[in-house]
Amino acid sequence: MDLRLPPLVDHHCHGVLRTGPEPAAFERYLTESEAPAAPGTSYFDSQLGFAVRRWCPPLLDLEPHCPPEVYLARRSELGADEATRRLLQGAGIGAYVVDTGLPGDQTAPAELAALAGGTATAHEIVRLETLAERLAAGAASGADLLDAVDAAVPDAARTAAGFKSIAAYRHGLDFDPAPPAREEAERAAARWLDAGGGRLEDPVLIRHLLWSAVRTGLPLQLHTGFGDTDLTLHRADPLLLTGFLRATAPLGAPIVLLHGYPYHRHAAYLAAVFPHVHADVGLALSHTGARAEAVLAEVLELVPFGKLLFSTDAYALPELYVAGAQLFRAALTRLLTRWTGDGSWSAPDAHRVAALLAAGNSRRVYGLPG
Amino acid sequence: MDLRLPPLVDHHCHGVLRTGPEPAAFERYLTESEAPAAPGTSYFDSQLGFAVRRWCPPLLDLEPHCPPEVYLARRSELGADEATRRLLQGAGIGAYVVDTGLPGDQTAPAELAALAGGTATAHEIVRLETLAERLAAGAASGADLLDAVDAAVPDAARTAAGFKSIAAYRHGLDFDPAPPAREEAERAAARWLDAGGGRLEDPVLIRHLLWSAVRTGLPLQLHTGFGDTDLTLHRADPLLLTGFLRATAPLGAPIVLLHGYPYHRHAAYLAAVFPHVHADVGLALSHTGARAEAVLAEVLELVPFGKLLFSTDAYALPELYVAGAQLFRAALTRLLTRWTGDGSWSAPDAHRVAALLAAGNSRRVYGLPG
Amino acid sequence: MDLRLPPLVDHHCHGVLRTGPEPAAFERYLTESEAPAAPGTSYFDSQLGFAVRRWCPPLLDLEPHCPPEVYLARRSELGADEATRRLLQGAGIGAYVVDTGLPGDQTAPAELAALAGGTATAHEIVRLETLAERLAAGAASGADLLDAVDAAVPDAARTAAGFKSIAAYRHGLDFDPAPPAREEAERAAARWLDAGGGRLEDPVLIRHLLWSAVRTGLPLQLHTGFGDTDLTLHRADPLLLTGFLRATAPLGAPIVLLHGYPYHRHAAYLAAVFPHVHADVGLALSHTGARAEAVLAEVLELVPFGKLLFSTDAYALPELYVAGAQLFRAALTRLLTRWTGDGSWSAPDAHRVAALLAAGNSRRVYGLPG
Repeated sequence: MDLRLPPLVDHHCHGVLRTGPEPAAFERYLTESEAPAAPGTSYFDSQLGFAVRRWCPPLLDLEPHCPPEVYLARRSELGADEATRRLLQGAGIGAYVVDTGLPGDQTAPAELAALAGGTATAHEIVRLETLAERLAAGAASGADLLDAVDAAVPDAARTAAGFKSIAAYRHGLDFDPAPPAREEAERAAARWLDAGGGRLEDPVLIRHLLWSAVRTGLPLQLHTGFGDTDLTLHRADPLLLTGFLRATAPLGAPIVLLHGYPYHRHAAYLAAVFPHVHADVGLALSHTGARAEAVLAEVLELVPFGKLLFSTDAYALPELYVAGAQLFRAALTRLLTRWTGDGSWSAPDAHRVAALLAAGNSRRVYGLPG
Repeated sequence: MDLRLPPLVDHHCHGVLRTGPEPAAFERYLTESEAPAAPGTSYFDSQLGFAVRRWCPPLLDLEPHCPPEVYLARRSELGADEATRRLLQGAGIGAYVVDTGLPGDQTAPAELAALAGGTATAHEIVRLETLAERLAAGAASGADLLDAVDAAVPDAARTAAGFKSIAAYRHGLDFDPAPPAREEAERAAARWLDAGGGRLEDPVLIRHLLWSAVRTGLPLQLHTGFGDTDLTLHRADPLLLTGFLRATAPLGAPIVLLHGYPYHRHAAYLAAVFPHVHADVGLALSHTGARAEAVLAEVLELVPFGKLLFSTDAYALPELYVAGAQLFRAALTRLLTRWTGDGSWSAPDAHRVAALLAAGNSRRVYGLPG
Repeated sequence: MDLRLPPLVDHHCHGVLRTGPEPAAFERYLTESEAPAAPGTSYFDSQLGFAVRRWCPPLLDLEPHCPPEVYLARRSELGADEATRRLLQGAGIGAYVVDTGLPGDQTAPAELAALAGGTATAHEIVRLETLAERLAAGAASGADLLDAVDAAVPDAARTAAGFKSIAAYRHGLDFDPAPPAREEAERAAARWLDAGGGRLEDPVLIRHLLWSAVRTGLPLQLHTGFGDTDLTLHRADPLLLTGFLRATAPLGAPIVLLHGYPYHRHAAYLAAVFPHVHADVGLALSHTGARAEAVLAEVLELVPFGKLLFSTDAYALPELYVAGAQLFRAALTRLLTRWTGDGSWSAPDAHRVAALLAAGNSRRVYGLPG
C-alpha cells in the first residue's frame, strides 16, 4: 500500500559533524562500540552498515550497495558539506528535536534544520546530566549547585521542547523512585563537587534532576535499552523504571522511553499501562536494518498507537538520518501492507495510525506546531 | 490449509458482565491499564481494539472495522443480552474453564455456558487468594484461618477443575519455593487478621495456599507475565518460579503458566524441561492482535506440543471471547499452513497438533470429558 | 537464492554414542529435560522431533516425516554403525570442533570425523570443569590442585582448539568478574577437596579456571541461555557476563557465547560492543526447528557478521548433526533470499556473509586451516 506519510518528526536526534569524518574513521560511526572492529572484521559488515549502503549511495549518484570505498571516495569528492546537504534533504524529515548534550563539534539544531533545507524546523532537548555538569563547574557549594539546578531547569523549560536523561548509563535504571529530600541532594552535590565534579554518576543528584524535569510538565526522555560499551544492558531494562513511573504518573508530564531494544516489548507494555508513558524504537530500527520491520512489529504489539514516536537517534553522520528515516518508512509500509492485506487492519486505520507514528504523536507530545 | 479444529476448550476465562457496559465505558475493557486513555488517544487504537473491530461487527450484522461508535450504537440497539448471545455463540468455544475469583457482577460458569448455547460445558477454577480472603472474614485466629484453608482447599478440589493464584500481583514470583512450616504460616495468618484482613499479600500465606493446592493433585494455574498497572512485570517472569517448579515436580500436579508475555519463551522453556509444567498465551494473543501469529510462533519454539493450552482470558465483554478465539484460529491456521507448505511439518502432524492445542491438551490436563 | 555454502565448521559439538540407543530410549535425546515425557505426551512432538523426522528419514531411504516407529525400525535394521555413517555423511560438516568433557561412551573427535568420512577434520575443546574434576581426584592439597590446574591449562592449550566452561550450570553467570587471588583460590580448592571433590560448583575455582583459560589466548566458549533442568535460566543470561567481558577485553582472547536462547539478542549485543566476544545459536536452531529462521534472524539483528559462528551442539545421536546443519542451511538460505529479494542486502554481500557464518568466522577464531 502507498502510505502517503507526512514529513517525519524526528523526536530524538543529535547534530551532524561540522567537519569530517576522515574516510578511515567513517565506519567507527556505524557501531555503538567504542573499540575498533575485531581483527579480520569491519563495522560495515552489520545491518546498519548494509542499510547505509542501501539507502545513501543513490543520494550521491551511486548504485545501492556499492563498495564502501567507492562510497567514501564519492563522498570526499563531493565534500562533506555537499554530501551532508544531499543526504539530509533526502531523508524526508520535517522537524528535528535535537538533544544538544553530546560532546563534540556538532551542528546546533537550527544549523541542522538549515542543512536539511525547505521548511524543516528545529527544537531543542536539554540533557540533564550535561546541564548539571556545566553548572557544577561554577558552583561554590552543594547548596549553591542545587540552587543553580533549580533555577536552570525551569529556565530551560521556557524554550526547550523537553528534557533527556542518560541515567541508564550513569547509574542504571534501578534507582530509588522517590525524589530525594533537599538535604540529601545537597550532601550529594557537595560530595560530587569535593570530588572535583566531572562525570555525574551520583544517583541522588540524578533523581533530583529527573524530578526537577518532571515538575516542569515538559516531556522527559529516558535512555533505555542498548547503547555502547559503557552500559550494563540489564540495568537499562525499562521495567526497572516501574516504581518511578508509578510515582510520576500523577504529575502528568510525558515520559518517553527511548530505544528500548532488546527490551522494546517491555517499553511498549509500560506505555500501555501508564497514561503518561510513551515509547520509541528509533535507534533499534537503524541498527537492525533488514530486521527493522520485525522490531517495529514487536513494539506495535502492546503499544497504544497514540504512544509510539518516530526517531532516528542519528548523530555525526548524515547517513544515519537517511538510514533511520528510510528504514522506518519501508518497515512501516511493509507491515501495514501485510496487516491490511490479511484483514487485520482496515486501510483507513492504517493511514491514520501511520501518520500518528510518523509525526502526529510527536507533535502532540512535544506541543509542536503543524 | 483447512485445519478442521474441534470446538475450543477455553481453559482460562472469566464471566461476562450481567449488565452493561455503558458505551462510554466500553473501551476501558480493551486495556489492562486502570487509567483512562492519555489525552488525545483512545484504547480502541490498539491491536486489541482493532481485533475486536475486525471480528465482532459481522456477528452483529455490521461490516468488519466499522467505526467504534457505529458498533456501540448497534450493540445498544440489540441490547446487551442479545449481543452477548450472538457474540458468544459466534466464538466457537465448546468448554469454558472459568476463574470465578474476579470481583464484579459477572456470570457464573453455568450462566456463561448457557449464553453460549449448544453443548458448551462449564467448569470452575477456584482462585486461592479470593478463597483465603473470604475465609479470613470469618476467622477468629491465625490457627483458625489455617484450619479453614486446610479444609476448604481439598473441599473445593472435589468439584473444581483446578486452582489459580495471582501471587505475581500480590508479591511477585520471587518467593521462597519451600512450603512454610505450620507455625510460620499461623503467625503470618495472625498478622494478617490483626491488620484487618483485606487484600492478601503475605508471601508466607500465599506459599501455604500454593502448596495446599498442589497437594490436591489438581492443576494449578499461575499468573505470569503482563497484566495491569498493579503488576511489577519483571517480578512476574515465570523463570522466577524455577525453584518452586523443581520443588513441586515430584508431586506431579500439573502447573499451568498463564499469559507469560513478554516472557512466553521462558514459560515454553519451563514446560519443556519440567514434565508437570504447561503453558498458555491466551491473553497475549488477544492483546497483540495482528501479531498473534508471531507470538504463538514464539511459544511454539520450545514448548512440547502436548503442553500448550488455548485460552482467551476473556472477562466482562463477550467481544473478548470472540477476539481470543478467532485470533487463535487464524494465527494457528496461518502458521501451520506455512510450516506444512515449506515442508517443516507434515499435514497429518499439523492437524493432530492443532487439535491438541485447541482442546485435547486442556481435556487431558483438567480431566474434562470429550 | 542458491547460497553455495562451503562445508560447515561445527565449532561446538560432542561425540556420538558408540552403541545404541535402544529405540525406546531414542526420544530421550530429543529434549533437554532429564525426565520422561509427561503422561500422554512424547518428546517426538516438538520442533526438534519434527526436524529430525523431516531431514533424517531420506538418508535412511525413507520418506520425510514417516512415523517415529518406522524410522526407528529402519535404523535398527541398518544397525547403529551404518545409520551413523549415513547420517553424518549427509550432514555436510567439514570440520568438527568437539567438546570432549561430556560423560558417557561417546566417540572421540578423530572417530567422529572418521565416521563422517571424506576430508572432515577434528579438533578438541577442553572443558574446564571436567579437567579440574579429574585433577582433583589426584590432588593432595588445595595448593597442589592449583599447581596442577596451572600446569594443565597451558599444557592443554598446546593441542586444543579452545576451552569451554559450564559455569552457567554450576553457579550461574552472576559471578565476581575479577580473577581470584592465589590464596583465595587455594582455600577454595582445599574446601572442595575436603568435601570430597566431585561436581565443581565453587565460584572461586570456576573464576580461577576461566582466567587461566583466557590467559592462554585460546578461544573460551561459555554456555549461556537454555539447557537442561539443572539450569536456572535467568542466571544464564549472557548479560550477567558484562563485567567479566569488560575485564577480559584487554587480553584479547576470543570469548564465544554459546546458545544464548532466549537471550540470543543479548549475546548479539555483547558481540557488537566487545571486540573479543562472539556468538552462536547452534542449539537454539535445532530445538526451534520450523522457527530456526526466525531465531537466526533475531541474532543477526545486532551481531556483527564477522562474529556469529555455526554449530550444532549435537551429541549422542547422529540425527542431531543432520538436523542442526540442515536447519541452519535452510534458515540462512530463506533469510538471505528474502533480504536480497527486498533489496536490503546485495547478492554478493549475502554470499560473502553466508560463507563467514558457515565456516569462515570459526576458521578465523579457532585458527583452523582451510
